[in-house]
Amino acid sequence: MTEYSIGLDLGGTNLRAAAIDHEGKLLHMVTGHTQYSEGRDAIMDDMVEAIASLREKQGAPGLAGIGVVVPGFISLEEGVVRNCNNIPALENFPIREQLRQRLNAPVILENDANAAALGEQWMGAGRGVDDLVLLTLGTGIGGGIVSGGCLIRGFMGMAGELGHITVVPNGLPCGCGNRGCLEKHASATAISAMARLLGYGDVTAKQVYERAVAGDERAREIFISMGEALGIALATLVNAFNAPLYLLSGGVIGAWEFFAPAMLAEARRRSFSFRTTNTRVEKAQLGGEAGLFGAAYLPWAK
Amino acid sequence: MTEYSIGLDLGGTNLRAAAIDHEGKLLHMVTGHTQYSEGRDAIMDDMVEAIASLREKQGAPGLAGIGVVVPGFISLEEGVVRNCNNIPALENFPIREQLRQRLNAPVILENDANAAALGEQWMGAGRGVDDLVLLTLGTGIGGGIVSGGCLIRGFMGMAGELGHITVVPNGLPCGCGNRGCLEKHASATAISAMARLLGYGDVTAKQVYERAVAGDERAREIFISMGEALGIALATLVNAFNAPLYLLSGGVIGAWEFFAPAMLAEARRRSFSFRTTNTRVEKAQLGGEAGLFGAAYLPWAK
Repeated sequence: MTEYSIGLDLGGTNLRAAAIDHEGKLLHMVTGHTQYSEGRDAIMDDMVEAIASLREKQGAPGLAGIGVVVPGFISLEEGVVRNCNNIPALENFPIREQLRQRLNAPVILENDANAAALGEQWMGAGRGVDDLVLLTLGTGIGGGIVSGGCLIRGFMGMAGELGHITVVPNGLPCGCGNRGCLEKHASATAISAMARLLGYGDVTAKQVYERAVAGDERAREIFISMGEALGIALATLVNAFNAPLYLLSGGVIGAWEFFAPAMLAEARRRSFSFRTTNTRVEKAQLGGEAGLFGAAYLPWAK
Repeated sequence: MTEYSIGLDLGGTNLRAAAIDHEGKLLHMVTGHTQYSEGRDAIMDDMVEAIASLREKQGAPGLAGIGVVVPGFISLEEGVVRNCNNIPALENFPIREQLRQRLNAPVILENDANAAALGEQWMGAGRGVDDLVLLTLGTGIGGGIVSGGCLIRGFMGMAGELGHITVVPNGLPCGCGNRGCLEKHASATAISAMARLLGYGDVTAKQVYERAVAGDERAREIFISMGEALGIALATLVNAFNAPLYLLSGGVIGAWEFFAPAMLAEARRRSFSFRTTNTRVEKAQLGGEAGLFGAAYLPWAK
């Protein structure tokens, strides 16, 4: 009998769940059929059904545990999502306890970027590395910190909010109340906003990238600005953690050639330990699967 | 037979060593008699003599281990101090291996601010708290991070360099190569430098404090500026770690009444999790003893 774990990732527009064995082999994967707009009950039914069907397929005796990954601030103590912009219907709902009751099994809850860091460490770019920091560059910026093989969760499960590190003290206002948060200067949304300021109108980060590829100097400046903001944050993270590996994920990393030189130059200038040690900054490898693998790894995590 | 540990702190102007039992009871303390200006051999003799005399007094069988704390960047792998402004004679010298040979016992080496964080967690303001971050405000600013009861050391032992977090991207130049490092805006040295810019001439941080106490508004502005810089760094640390406790130590914390309100207001504004959780920012309790207690705790640390 193979020991396996079930991971569920409630990310993007619908959910995915998988049975994965201890060596990271994907045994079965299912995709939910519910649109999040159908509301909480439909989402909960979908989650329970996905997990139950995988457990039935693989057999309950080999199941090491169930990990569930949700976007937003999670209160680990209560098993509740406190702040979930993507799926407001789940906010302040006792999601962990409800799943436990309906599945008759304990469930481990985790935030999406934290789980992605764990997934990359288990089966992605961080294999064999005990300490790493992951930044997910999307509409916002999320973060996950693995130290000594363990996820740093913080006393309320709110650690790793690296998108809200201040990189410009009087920078752009952020919904979190701060000004100059990393995610206001280096996310896909920030790239669009900078393009708008330069008169490009309503363009996506991908369209800005295409202009940069086509040789548009102003579009390239946008990625340089974004890279510098990332470099400031990176230097701070290197000074704090001295981890051997920093990973970036999300669609924006497709523009690596345009932002990475500025990012690395800034980090080198701002961090003595970055300059003097073999600190790597690399692309994450699992893409959209990182959260799913991280979810499945939760029952085995230290 | 009481189990005990020997800690040695090579801080300030001379060394101190103590035998301390597992409950934190100080059994014996000795102070070195060597001035650091006498050079490396004299310092090494002093260290060996202090440790050996304590071991003789307490008896070798009960000795759990020996912890030695040195200022500067330490390469844990090699047991060498890489960068030590206070005691340049010790730079790049195999201090751990030399002590091991002469004492015929293993020695654990640690950086001063890291050890102070561990000491505070063991017997100071952090008792009973598993996660805390310490900032030591002196001529520079050091940092120590305890997560899950363990010191975060980083892959080269260079974690916790929190004095070099960027708080002002184009701020004051720092010897580390960066601009706007926390320690250039919030250390005792920074307070003196700000006073000089305001025309006070050559004054110490303590003298600036005395002027603030006397009601001097410009002196008070200096502490407000320093508090704001600390608040930016604090918000970043809260967003990254979500620890329940942040500690400040060093002589400058005597000016708490003048810098803390600005520091806390800045942190509240800049960190969602600071505002919405019961995150404490407090004075450390062990003062100059924190490093010594941290040193002694090293053999027992996870």
